[in-house]
Amino acid sequence: MNEQDFSYLHALLEDNSLKQLRDELADMAYPDIAEFIMEFDDDKIAVRLFRILPKDISADVFAYLDLDNQQAIVQSITDSEIQRLMDDLFVDDAVDFLEEVPANIVRRVLANTDKETRDTINRFLKYPENSAGSVMTNEMVELHDRLTVADAVKSIRRNGVDKETIYTCYVIDDGRRLVGTIPLRRLLLNDDDTPLTEIMSDDEQLIFVRTMDDQEEVASVAKKYDLLSVPVTDKEDRLVGIITIDDIVDIIDEEATEDMEKMALLTPSEDEYLKTGVFSLAKNRFGWLLLLMIASTFTGQIIEGFENQLATIAGLTACIPMLMGTGGNSGNQVSTLIIRGLALGEVKIKDYFKILWKEIRVSLMVGIALAVANVARMLIVRALTGGDTANSVIMVVSLSVAAVVIVSKTIGCTLPIVAKILKLDPALMAGPLITTLVDTISLIIYFALTRALIPMG
Amino acid sequence: MNEQDFSYLHALLEDNSLKQLRDELADMAYPDIAEFIMEFDDDKIAVRLFRILPKDISADVFAYLDLDNQQAIVQSITDSEIQRLMDDLFVDDAVDFLEEVPANIVRRVLANTDKETRDTINRFLKYPENSAGSVMTNEMVELHDRLTVADAVKSIRRNGVDKETIYTCYVIDDGRRLVGTIPLRRLLLNDDDTPLTEIMSDDEQLIFVRTMDDQEEVASVAKKYDLLSVPVTDKEDRLVGIITIDDIVDIIDEEATEDMEKMALLTPSEDEYLKTGVFSLAKNRFGWLLLLMIASTFTGQIIEGFENQLATIAGLTACIPMLMGTGGNSGNQVSTLIIRGLALGEVKIKDYFKILWKEIRVSLMVGIALAVANVARMLIVRALTGGDTANSVIMVVSLSVAAVVIVSKTIGCTLPIVAKILKLDPALMAGPLITTLVDTISLIIYFALTRALIPMG
Repeated sequence: MNEQDFSYLHALLEDNSLKQLRDELADMAYPDIAEFIMEFDDDKIAVRLFRILPKDISADVFAYLDLDNQQAIVQSITDSEIQRLMDDLFVDDAVDFLEEVPANIVRRVLANTDKETRDTINRFLKYPENSAGSVMTNEMVELHDRLTVADAVKSIRRNGVDKETIYTCYVIDDGRRLVGTIPLRRLLLNDDDTPLTEIMSDDEQLIFVRTMDDQEEVASVAKKYDLLSVPVTDKEDRLVGIITIDDIVDIIDEEATEDMEKMALLTPSEDEYLKTGVFSLAKNRFGWLLLLMIASTFTGQIIEGFENQLATIAGLTACIPMLMGTGGNSGNQVSTLIIRGLALGEVKIKDYFKILWKEIRVSLMVGIALAVANVARMLIVRALTGGDTANSVIMVVSLSVAAVVIVSKTIGCTLPIVAKILKLDPALMAGPLITTLVDTISLIIYFALTRALIPMG
Repeated sequence: MNEQDFSYLHALLEDNSLKQLRDELADMAYPDIAEFIMEFDDDKIAVRLFRILPKDISADVFAYLDLDNQQAIVQSITDSEIQRLMDDLFVDDAVDFLEEVPANIVRRVLANTDKETRDTINRFLKYPENSAGSVMTNEMVELHDRLTVADAVKSIRRNGVDKETIYTCYVIDDGRRLVGTIPLRRLLLNDDDTPLTEIMSDDEQLIFVRTMDDQEEVASVAKKYDLLSVPVTDKEDRLVGIITIDDIVDIIDEEATEDMEKMALLTPSEDEYLKTGVFSLAKNRFGWLLLLMIASTFTGQIIEGFENQLATIAGLTACIPMLMGTGGNSGNQVSTLIIRGLALGEVKIKDYFKILWKEIRVSLMVGIALAVANVARMLIVRALTGGDTANSVIMVVSLSVAAVVIVSKTIGCTLPIVAKILKLDPALMAGPLITTLVDTISLIIYFALTRALIPMG
């Protein structure tokens, strides 16, 4: 059902039937209107479409547009249109936009908002990136702790229209401190004269975050307690905002993307791939590649020290890529599981010895099975190609496979946990970094076994 | 605020102060009660704790427990306790549980539910894994399209207590067909005598999924339209269930985990790492490792065919790991970006040529920069170690670095898109698979450049 067909709208636009187009758009869901507008690479058409939207939905659509379109629109509309737009936008969407645009646009926008909105936005803009404060909104339902259910419902009916959500209400005391929460559902299912304090969740059940908490913390609280919005308090326990589930869903996606980027040793970027410039893409990738290239100097040195043996024993060199590949892949498999487990809270530091014991058993099984498979593989290749690989070489390579799997699984489960203990990001301890480390160790094992088991001429 | 301290509860349990423990638990949030119960490795204690919970919250806590604990509890409680538990559980939680437990438990549970619940559960259990039908619940607010706002609010107050959410209401016609949706908020902010048909979202704005749609589709609809619940209809457009945002959040996490596992070439598993047996972990890893080991036979053959040159020219062999590593890492970086972009819908198949053109420019910049860095690296190593690497070797290796980066970035951005076109999972086209492919191509480039540029003795 989600394949959008906008051909009828395109036809109306080409016919210049703007009134009809406007009526069609007004009937559509905001994200679909935004999707249609974003189809045009030409900013002028996007601005023109935006301006024909009915005024009461234009801010809703604006929030779903790309930054490029948003910026083009703000640069083309009048001061009074900006004022109306800023009034209608939720504070979190306004802040998201203003965080990304050049300073001159921020100045112009702020010059066209009333003092109260301006102060709020300025305060929100000061919170560090990815903090709870930077993603919250202040449009929530606040109820005084002296109210009854009937008062509360009346207050919501009067003020609810401007709130980002009314489904969880926040109870505050005279000092604006958060003292409880009430789902709207509980309000509706209780009698009119029940005092809020009797039915609100308080004390042990009061879930909140602080303005300076990381957005990851917000997401994990929301997930654990199945919240539709998470309240944010300042250091004095005063309620200053909420973060709604739609933003939390975005945070969850963002954090998973960031972890994947780090696991591939990319410097994470908040921008979508297609919107990131060539130069920043190159910059995000170069540093790690350089570092790993320099690190591979060690593997080079190890091979050079062994070049005579490699040259004289047939088949030894040919197995280097297979051994390094198997080691890297084995380590990558387990580090991915541990990194993701840590991110989701399914694995904790205290589980390390459980994990290690599990990985030792798993790697013994996998290592031995692969070693056996390798004997078969090398015998078949020798028979088919009439090669001169000695039995002793086949034995050394196969033993090395088993040893490399065991060592790399051990390293793969250890490094993410070590990173977590050192308060580094476990996601960095993934594929490429582990591969480079395991490469070196694989070669050392391989050459040591060769020296020990193959008599030199 | 999320560090849970359960030491007081542990003390009460040790003192056997069960009544006091029960009162403490009754005041806590359900996920925290579940967390406390799950701390005990001994199922008997978990069952005992569960049984002291007040009856009206035990089903809510049950839904947050691990499968192991759930199973232990169901095996220890009486038939009438099972009946009560099944009555109180939401259908989606009951189905989640029954999908995972052995058939004899399913039979016993179903024998202790009333016919209506049993029929519903049986129907839900038939939907394929990961389909919308398998994750939905049927406890939603359905309103007839002849009602007014006042009727609707009355009906919600009467029936709302058993519904999983009341925040989005679904309007149906005489044939139980879904004809519109109304957020509770809109109900409350409209006059009592407004007909629902006047204020519901219908036609173009009606968002729903089908029972057989994949859960990924559910998540992407919910994200796009910021829905708190997604309605599910059968082929005749009849409303059969809804999927709530808390389950959608779990789906989002699950899908990201699955992609990461595939990217590390692990056979995805739905179970948490710590709960997966050693044998299934080994099985999930062995197949791909074996396949890649066999694939590396080709690199081995290429090296064997070149063994004479490798043996006679100093420094050539030592650079193989560096070249293969750089190629694998470069390819991995871009494939990760494309795979994630495809998963989030930020990148589409039609963008391929845009992506390719971008990657060609990025890889030229990165490739040339790395080649220059490599000249410096090899000159420094030669000076420090007094090695005998010829200038021509340094030149060939550095040219190969640039070529390998360009080729692997091209492959890295192409394979995930090709997989998408072939309706395969793009996540499989990540690190390990690309590394193995790039390894072979890197060697071919390297040896071809060596042949062309270094005069053989």
